[in-house]
This record gives sequence, structure tokens and C-alpha cells, in this order.
Amino acid sequence: MLGLEKYSELLQENLAQVITVKEPIQLYEPISYIVSLGGKRLRPILTLMACDFFGGDPKKATNAAMAVELFHNFSLIHDDIMDDAPLRRGEQTVHEKWDVNTGILSGDAMLILAYQLFEEYEPELFRQLAKLFSKTAIEVCEGQQYDVDFETRDDVTIPEYLKMIDYKTAVLIGAAMQMGAIVANASQSCKEYIYQFGRNLGIAFQLQDDYLDAFGDPKTFGKQVGGDIITNKKTYLYLTALEKGTSQDKETLEQLYSITPKNSEDKIETIKELFVSTGSAKDTLNAIKDYTKTAFDLLEKIKISEEKKEQLRDFGNWLMKRKV
Amino acid sequence: MLGLEKYSELLQENLAQVITVKEPIQLYEPISYIVSLGGKRLRPILTLMACDFFGGDPKKATNAAMAVELFHNFSLIHDDIMDDAPLRRGEQTVHEKWDVNTGILSGDAMLILAYQLFEEYEPELFRQLAKLFSKTAIEVCEGQQYDVDFETRDDVTIPEYLKMIDYKTAVLIGAAMQMGAIVANASQSCKEYIYQFGRNLGIAFQLQDDYLDAFGDPKTFGKQVGGDIITNKKTYLYLTALEKGTSQDKETLEQLYSITPKNSEDKIETIKELFVSTGSAKDTLNAIKDYTKTAFDLLEKIKISEEKKEQLRDFGNWLMKRKV
Repeated sequence: MLGLEKYSELLQENLAQVITVKEPIQLYEPISYIVSLGGKRLRPILTLMACDFFGGDPKKATNAAMAVELFHNFSLIHDDIMDDAPLRRGEQTVHEKWDVNTGILSGDAMLILAYQLFEEYEPELFRQLAKLFSKTAIEVCEGQQYDVDFETRDDVTIPEYLKMIDYKTAVLIGAAMQMGAIVANASQSCKEYIYQFGRNLGIAFQLQDDYLDAFGDPKTFGKQVGGDIITNKKTYLYLTALEKGTSQDKETLEQLYSITPKNSEDKIETIKELFVSTGSAKDTLNAIKDYTKTAFDLLEKIKISEEKKEQLRDFGNWLMKRKV
Repeated sequence: MLGLEKYSELLQENLAQVITVKEPIQLYEPISYIVSLGGKRLRPILTLMACDFFGGDPKKATNAAMAVELFHNFSLIHDDIMDDAPLRRGEQTVHEKWDVNTGILSGDAMLILAYQLFEEYEPELFRQLAKLFSKTAIEVCEGQQYDVDFETRDDVTIPEYLKMIDYKTAVLIGAAMQMGAIVANASQSCKEYIYQFGRNLGIAFQLQDDYLDAFGDPKTFGKQVGGDIITNKKTYLYLTALEKGTSQDKETLEQLYSITPKNSEDKIETIKELFVSTGSAKDTLNAIKDYTKTAFDLLEKIKISEEKKEQLRDFGNWLMKRKV
């Protein structure tokens, strides 16, 4: 199996060839811009890794991997418009650097370009990849819609929240890995297991993001610690605290989540104390552990060398052990 | 060959089954809304007609036809946001009835749903249809971008304008027909001819729209006569008048296209007179005739019964003889 850097290089070379700025410039420049901002390239690397894992040639998975990355970037452009976000990876968002119309149209084009990347595959693979891609893309749209809906709802349940992060984040990670398996012509059960592996790891990853947002180390977290609390975002931590807390806790939580004080330090402190005292923080850590364990247990079912499993487990551990 | 009403019915029944409102409601309701506004359903009818024409079962072309219709409606939702248009087919646009974010996300979902409609076809057809669809969809995005770019440019050439309407309007009409031919398993040359037939008819159709916008009968045109002149839209009429007029004509045209008077009657009258005196109105009618003739000449090359050709010619004539 290749190392992570090898996957990154393979991806970088191919992206540079596919993402070119041509006429009409205003359509293609923002696409080149957002892709050039980089990021971890987590999803496309997972596609290459999964292909390698199942004995395929990672090079053959490059187009599928790039389709996943283009789709992810398409969703970032449109989500940033919806959230009115000024920054993405420390740089101006597309709709800020250009305008909303440019963001809409360039995003649309990226989604279509992603589909075109599957055209190099033979008809049967093309069909499988495009089908999985469409199913996943629709779920991501639904996840985004649930996320928007939850902002104005005060009766969001924990299962609803889990479904939202599953759709908005986890299914694309599962699909990214399944695409690698498809290109490698893995068996039906292997394709299913690797999808569920990625999906469970994706949920664990998002729950960890929720946890770190409150309890992460400001020096290493990368985002503003307490950001979710400041914006009254109903995360797993918050919903669990509501469910487990006393009626007094519940009242305090809801009251603090109805305001946006200029100085948010006190609010953040009180909320974090409630996350701990209600047992929500601990529950969240347990949920992360459970989803990670489910993912790793799935690996055991896959008929493949112990060495390769170990590498995927290492990767999962690396992913989950970041900056707590 | 079935009659137009039969195609319409077939389409209507199937659209009602495919476009259902489910959770999350906010995502799917706007899709159902825009599709229910109707319109001529010109493009999907052309898909069914072309399939029929080449001896296929129009029923088999229904999913491809609906994909074309969903794509067209997706582009309407996003274009209406970009143009800040309040009305579509006499009703509120999606972003007016809901909001811009809803319009963006529901539009995205429609584009993906369109791709999913190809999944019922066997791998080879699926590949051909999705490939043609992606190529066309990217061209429509490019056409829309050129249209936006032209608003702020004062050196647009006639070939550039023709390319813009080709991409923004005509290629989708060509593709709609080619999809019918693909489903009917027509020969490669037939697929190519019917595509060019649709595309040339599409350009003629758009040029006629430009012409009618200035010289149409207000009672039957459907849109506000003079609308393009009021909004200083650089149409074929305008660009040709600039090219053919004297330097004095050019100056008057450019001056009037730099202002937006409250009462636009005088402006419209002067511009229309210039369209006539420069010969631009006549040139536009000739261009419409030329593109229509090119389309009809292509029909002759297709090996198929005279009776079927006649029906397609009738349809073309019906399309081109509307409300002058």
C-alpha cells in the first residue's frame, strides 16, 4: 500500500490537470480558486486508499477521488453562501471574493464537472460510481436542509441530529471509500462493509468535532473554541445535556441558547460546566468511542490481509486522535 | 407517431409520480412547486417525439425527457436568483416565495435528481445519456456566464452572441432530441443530425424571441413588448444595428442603451425605428429563416419515412410561426 504522501501527490498532479482556467474565465476561476485552497483532501485520499486496500491500482481511482473532492468543494461554495461565511480555510469565500451569483454558477458547474470525471470508466463502473454519487449527493443536500431547519426548531431529537450529521458529513466519507472499492472490483459485501466503516468513522469524526468545539485546546483546534456555543448551534453535546439535565439545567441551557451576548466568555463557561455536570460531555466521548469501535469491528469482517487492516486502523486512529 | 397531447399526458403522469414532496419538506416543496408551474414542456416533448420518430417506444424515453425538464427547471430557479426575477410563468419565483438559500439548495437537488432519472437505463444507454447531459449542462452554465459577462461589456460581437444563445438555449433543445434518438437506438449519424436539427431550430427560436420582443404583437407575445430594450439587453437586433448603422446611428443606439428612463415609450420607438432603418430587423428575420432552413435541410439527411419527417417539419413550423 502506498503512503499518505503518495496519495496526496497523485491527487495533486491530477487535479492540476483537470482544473484549468478557461473561457468563460468568471466561471472557471472560482473553481480553480476554491480547489487551490487545499484542505486535508481527506475524502479523495480515502478513495485512493480504499482502492489500494482492495488490490486495485490507486491510479485508476484518481478520477473518482477527484469527483468526490469537486463535490465536496461544490458543497462548500454553496453552503458558504447560505451561511454567509466570509472565510474558508483562512481565505475569502468565493461569494465574498466575487459575488453570490458567481458562487451559485461556479458551484453548479463543479457539480457537473464531478459527474464528468466518471466518464473515463467503462459503462458498468461508470453506472455504479455515478449512482452512488447521486444517492450521496442528494443525501448531502437533505442533510444541509435538516441543518438549516434545526436552527429554528426547538424540538430537535438526538436521533434526528445523528441523521443530520450522517447525511451532511458521514455518507460522503462512506461513499468516498466505497468508490475506491468499486474501482478495485471488490466483492459486494466488501463494498458494503467499507461504506459502513467510512460512515461510522464519519459520524465519530463529526461528534468529535462537536466535542472539540467546546473542550478542544485553543492552540491546536484550528477553529474558535466555543464557536458552536456562541452561535447557539444545537450539537450532540447540547441535545444530550438537555435530555440528561434537571429541569433547572434545561431552563438555563435554553435561556443561554436564546441570547447572543457581546462578551460570550461567561456563557461559554456556564454551558461547558453544564455539559460536564449533566454527563453530556462523557456521553459524547462514549458515543465517539462507540462509533469508532463499530467502524473497526466492520474492518474485521473484510477478508483482506491483517497488514492492510492495520494500516486502515492506524489511519482511523490518526484521524480520531487529532488535537483533543 | 403519437400526437402532442399524448406526449404531454405521458409526461404529466410520470412527473406526478417522480416529483413527490417528502422530508425534508423545505427541500422538496419548491421542486414540486416550480415543476407544477408548467410551461410548454417543449424540451421533454421533443425527447419523446424524437424517440418515437426513430422507431423507439416513447414510454422508454420518459425518464430521459423528465431529466431534461428537471434540468431546465433547475436552471430557471438558479437563473431567477441571479436575475433577481420576482415572477416566473406569472407566479412567484422560488427565491421570492421562499428565500435565496432555499432556491440554491432545491436547485442543486433538482440537478442531482435529473441524473438519477437515467439510472433506469441499461449501462451503455445510461452512460451515453449522462455523458450528453453533462456536456450540455456545462455548456448551459457557460452560456449563462457569457450572458452575465455581456451585460457589462460593450464590445460583444455577433458571433459571440450567437455562441451565447447556442449554449444557453439551443444545445439543450438539441440534446433533448438526441436523447430520444439514443433511447431509440438510432444510428450514430441520425443521433448527430437530430442534435443539429434541434440546435439550429433552437437558435432560430431564440432569435425569433429577440425579434418578437421588439416587433411582436403585445396581445399575443406573452411577455412585455420592448422588455429587452428597456433593460438594455444586447440582442441580435441591437448588435446587428450597431454593425450596420451609420456612426450617427451607432451613437444614438449606444446613448439610448446607457440610460433607463422612467417612461420608456420614446426610447422603444426610436430604437425600433433604428432596428428597421439599419436593416437589422430584416437581417434578423433572414437569420431566423436561415437557421430554420438549415434545421429542415438536416432532416432530409435522416433515413426515415417521409410521413415522420413531415410531422417534425410541421412541429418546427408550428414552433416558428407563433405570435409574430
